Amino acid sequence: MVAEIITIGDELLIGQIVDSNSAWLAAQLNDTGIAVRKITSVGDQPVHLKEALDGAFGYANLVILTGGLGPTRDDKTKAALRDYFGGEMIVHEPTLTHVKRIFSRLDLPVLEVNLHQALVPDSCQVLPNPNGTAPGMWFERAGKVCIALPGVPHEMKDLTQKQILPRLREFFKGRFEQICHKVIITAGIGESLLAEMIAEVENTLPPHIRLAYLPNLGTVRLRLSGRGADNGALRRQVSDFARKIIALARPYVIAEEDLAIHQIIINELKKRNQTLATAESCTGGYIAHLITTEPGASEVFKGGVVVYSNELKQRLLQVRPDTLEDHGAVSRQAVEEMAQAAVSKLHTDFAIAVSGVAGPGGGTPEKPVGTVWIAVAGKDRVNSRRFLFGNKRMQNIQRSATAALNMLYQFMHKS
Amino acid sequence: MVAEIITIGDELLIGQIVDSNSAWLAAQLNDTGIAVRKITSVGDQPVHLKEALDGAFGYANLVILTGGLGPTRDDKTKAALRDYFGGEMIVHEPTLTHVKRIFSRLDLPVLEVNLHQALVPDSCQVLPNPNGTAPGMWFERAGKVCIALPGVPHEMKDLTQKQILPRLREFFKGRFEQICHKVIITAGIGESLLAEMIAEVENTLPPHIRLAYLPNLGTVRLRLSGRGADNGALRRQVSDFARKIIALARPYVIAEEDLAIHQIIINELKKRNQTLATAESCTGGYIAHLITTEPGASEVFKGGVVVYSNELKQRLLQVRPDTLEDHGAVSRQAVEEMAQAAVSKLHTDFAIAVSGVAGPGGGTPEKPVGTVWIAVAGKDRVNSRRFLFGNKRMQNIQRSATAALNMLYQFMHKS
Repeated sequence: MVAEIITIGDELLIGQIVDSNSAWLAAQLNDTGIAVRKITSVGDQPVHLKEALDGAFGYANLVILTGGLGPTRDDKTKAALRDYFGGEMIVHEPTLTHVKRIFSRLDLPVLEVNLHQALVPDSCQVLPNPNGTAPGMWFERAGKVCIALPGVPHEMKDLTQKQILPRLREFFKGRFEQICHKVIITAGIGESLLAEMIAEVENTLPPHIRLAYLPNLGTVRLRLSGRGADNGALRRQVSDFARKIIALARPYVIAEEDLAIHQIIINELKKRNQTLATAESCTGGYIAHLITTEPGASEVFKGGVVVYSNELKQRLLQVRPDTLEDHGAVSRQAVEEMAQAAVSKLHTDFAIAVSGVAGPGGGTPEKPVGTVWIAVAGKDRVNSRRFLFGNKRMQNIQRSATAALNMLYQFMHKS
Repeated sequence: MVAEIITIGDELLIGQIVDSNSAWLAAQLNDTGIAVRKITSVGDQPVHLKEALDGAFGYANLVILTGGLGPTRDDKTKAALRDYFGGEMIVHEPTLTHVKRIFSRLDLPVLEVNLHQALVPDSCQVLPNPNGTAPGMWFERAGKVCIALPGVPHEMKDLTQKQILPRLREFFKGRFEQICHKVIITAGIGESLLAEMIAEVENTLPPHIRLAYLPNLGTVRLRLSGRGADNGALRRQVSDFARKIIALARPYVIAEEDLAIHQIIINELKKRNQTLATAESCTGGYIAHLITTEPGASEVFKGGVVVYSNELKQRLLQVRPDTLEDHGAVSRQAVEEMAQAAVSKLHTDFAIAVSGVAGPGGGTPEKPVGTVWIAVAGKDRVNSRRFLFGNKRMQNIQRSATAALNMLYQFMHKS
């Protein structure tokens, strides 16, 4: 079972939006046992979609399209699919009723372009879209399947989970390859040293099990992927190799599943029944945001402050005016005061404080753009460190967050 | 001038990472006058890269590859490129020196896999990578160009801006199509009503100018794209159409360039010399983060609080215990107190407060998951509104942020 994902829209080709639908769809298909061989993005012109469909049907049993089904006239996908799979455009009555109901509920007039949403080629089976006006479409040809989905992420996801995956399991029954992944997260060791450390296991991997290294700001994710027919045996085999790798890389392993550092910290805090607060300057709330993307973060994360101005560093955290005057806001003294004040004022077990020059402005010869001070504090101790990241603002924010969370992880394990 | 972007890595095809490199590269190429016809993601197996290269060279003058150049053995791109373009692998001495210098500066041993980074096919010109160990490679064949770049975003971006784009301008001199974009942002009107409102302009667009609608949580971005030979005339033509569209959609236009709502608000606050604070519960710092991604946000954004627990709502914002007791933290009363307290305690002109049930847990029959109260306050007035978003946590956080910023925009224009 091999699939291709095709995403449609000029906005992708001029770089106006990042295609995140494909990664989500690819993960879903992999979990179902369908390998994705290729992901292709093309513009709205029907001729380019036709070329992409020809290419995909050359090898794939399944082609999933997203995008190009909106009501406005930049969207030409439906006509192109009618031309490709044959048939006539007809009005799909349930969709028409659904579209009219949506507009009447919103108390908006139904325009002609909205009614067009109910037009579909009669060569497809319609997949009703409860969350939007453009329905999904399921085409079959010579035992192969092509599915067109709206590009709006939550509509696409709901259709995929509730309708597409169950139908695919039925349609391609018995033809799925089993795919099994296992992820190990390491911190504090570079990709190449790690590779050397686990070489003796890597050298013995059979061809159907592959190992990938995914380094990211101080952590390396190791991903073992196995493919095969029998799920039980494959899973045991992948687990065995994972165990061997973990044994060799033990001191650097911080998680044995695919977790980000903020998730690892939340889990650790839950286990210990402890709490965390943040005091952020240059990261501007990004650390609090990362933590609160996790369901259940409220059990351990009480909250934090974003003290972007010196005024608020004093007002909310009582950083001493002398400190700011003598050492500046980007200093060991300032972040240590911030972290300790966060622990005491927000009544938590731990706090993270970050202050730095994110850029592009604000750099000085002694503190160039990318200079970041990070402190982590517990109830009776504090640790701080200076970093020098690059000159890209967003990257400095992200690196600071990862570094701060890594520091907290080490700090929690040194008490 | 037509290009294809190919991104390489099994991690893309199993959905483990989202490909954001392509969008960035596509935007850069478009600005240079190079149209991207297609973006393709393939795995690490050389045979799939070869297929993709064959497909791309069938029509494109330029093929840019990213990824697959790391030091570990999951990366087979370099060998595949040697096979494709011919030649032998040789040691590139400047790269070898550079790699050794990086490791000695970090006080780390140089491993054999790191030395491999200096091996390149002698059929390419090497593009030195000052930020990493894998150099870029420039291949030519029959007047066409193929460039392989490392997948690490900041390395890829630096190589592109400093080396690739200048070389491409030189190599393909005189062969660029001019591409001209103009974006108009509207708020408070749906995509289809807007389409009807501006139909008379859209109907007169010539074939070389296209209009796209990009709706996103309460705003619609209109993008006019023109292609042609003469830049001055094309730009004038696109501007003329933009002016006509703006005239028809006037009450809904919030920006005449490609800005996000948080950027529009920062610009407006700068113009007025006013300041903003945030008081976030369910959005967990996301609004502060959005605002502080912008360089210069510190001129108008003093900071905020993330009051994830009721305890901190009281401790940091003095929300009255009665309010939380009688109405709950997700209530008009609570968010209005939060917003007003933020204005007065953080000494700003405006504040945004958000409290809601992001999910997946925490819902009740009266306040199901997705219920969000948002308040915006000035020095002597406050406005609040209840929203009911969906049941997806991340989506609730993002929608709440966009809704809050839209509310603030309206609020600032009603004073």
